[in-house]
Amino acid sequence: MIKQKLKIVKIGGNIINDEASLYSFLKDFADLKSPKILVHGGGKRANEISEAMGLQPKTIAGRRVTDEATLEVVTMVYAGLLNKMITAQLQKLDCNALGLSGADANCIMAHKRIVAEVDYGFAGDVDAVNAKFIALLLQNKVTPVFCAITHDKNGQLLNTNADTIASEMAIAMSNFYEVELNYVFELKGVLENMADKNSVIQHINLKKYEQLTEGGIISEGMIPKLHNCFNALKKGVQKVNIGDASLIKNTNNLFTTLSLK
Amino acid sequence: MIKQKLKIVKIGGNIINDEASLYSFLKDFADLKSPKILVHGGGKRANEISEAMGLQPKTIAGRRVTDEATLEVVTMVYAGLLNKMITAQLQKLDCNALGLSGADANCIMAHKRIVAEVDYGFAGDVDAVNAKFIALLLQNKVTPVFCAITHDKNGQLLNTNADTIASEMAIAMSNFYEVELNYVFELKGVLENMADKNSVIQHINLKKYEQLTEGGIISEGMIPKLHNCFNALKKGVQKVNIGDASLIKNTNNLFTTLSLK
Repeated sequence: MIKQKLKIVKIGGNIINDEASLYSFLKDFADLKSPKILVHGGGKRANEISEAMGLQPKTIAGRRVTDEATLEVVTMVYAGLLNKMITAQLQKLDCNALGLSGADANCIMAHKRIVAEVDYGFAGDVDAVNAKFIALLLQNKVTPVFCAITHDKNGQLLNTNADTIASEMAIAMSNFYEVELNYVFELKGVLENMADKNSVIQHINLKKYEQLTEGGIISEGMIPKLHNCFNALKKGVQKVNIGDASLIKNTNNLFTTLSLK
Repeated sequence: MIKQKLKIVKIGGNIINDEASLYSFLKDFADLKSPKILVHGGGKRANEISEAMGLQPKTIAGRRVTDEATLEVVTMVYAGLLNKMITAQLQKLDCNALGLSGADANCIMAHKRIVAEVDYGFAGDVDAVNAKFIALLLQNKVTPVFCAITHDKNGQLLNTNADTIASEMAIAMSNFYEVELNYVFELKGVLENMADKNSVIQHINLKKYEQLTEGGIISEGMIPKLHNCFNALKKGVQKVNIGDASLIKNTNNLFTTLSLK
């Protein structure tokens, strides 16, 4: 049986931070013909709200920790403000969007990250994606829009990495669809040289990924993203791309495509 | 064709304000066997967040006005914090809840209230409920949980009265189901005498409603609620009840039932 194509697009905070960039992206996203899913990160709005509420960001050993107050703020901002604002904009653009957290219809189950050296607080690691329900929405021409909040099926909401949500979702959906996973961020792709924004490495396979990592070419921030990408490819996702907002328009040749071989 | 029964339950802010009352209510709600929908109001959390952010509630002629800052806060608190917290709790209780705003899958379309004497800002009056999509969820054993945020299908989110959402939803769903609409609030029902919390008027028909209103028996706060109830009954809703949280357990005989005749 030939599987139908599904595009999953993850957008980062930098697009969400700028109203004009976000609307321009959403127009292109709404125009995509195939079944599609949007996963969005948080952006600086959560920090602004935290600050306005007089909360101090909690860090341990330089890493952000999701304490209870922070969890409330990210739930409000990601699942409430940003998710519904994006959903309403997509509805305006005639894309029948439905905003979701992982708790909704048990779409994404996770567990609280196990405390090893660092206690990350209410950070969630994904256990399961309810691909069957998400497929039902897609079959009914509904476009799911996920924020990066999950739950543990025991009443606890959890703050989760949006890149990981996108890759776990891509893996789960590849049982039903031929999935293309697109990471949209501020750069044109994975760069050979961070000082040159056009030095895009257009194709990275598993071997090259290992070379680049060992050679210290890939920046530290990019390593977990690429790890997510290759994990997805190994587990059945057809295609993974990384690039800026022009990526999903398919008019720009400059972006990074990842493959196993 | 005999229609299947559907229970729609609206809970007010007072239940949401108290964690123990809310959890106790959600347990009873999760236990309801028939297809069901929950509609929740806001509670004082939005005021607390507004205050923590240093926002001043805006009022005109003594009435709350939803300015832009207030709309952001209610979107965060109603659609984010409360809606996802309730959804996660219901998931724990094995009720497959899905939290929704009116923007999601275009479930509730509204228009910005027309400025007559008072400009209420971003307050929405309901135009249409997407009963077909809500029925699809119910058929798939998903329990919709609505917050009181709607949209105008033109990118604008709107703050909407939760009582009205419940009655408009009941009316729309009565095309597909035999609908029982339940308003759960802090009192045992409509009271004959506000000083006596047990003076519940157990049955109110349209004629009695007119008598009570004319006689000044019904408190001013209750009039719009009863107006919503009778509007629902006139437009096809089978049954409307008003009472406290024990109402949905059907173990308490003391509540108010409304009917046309």
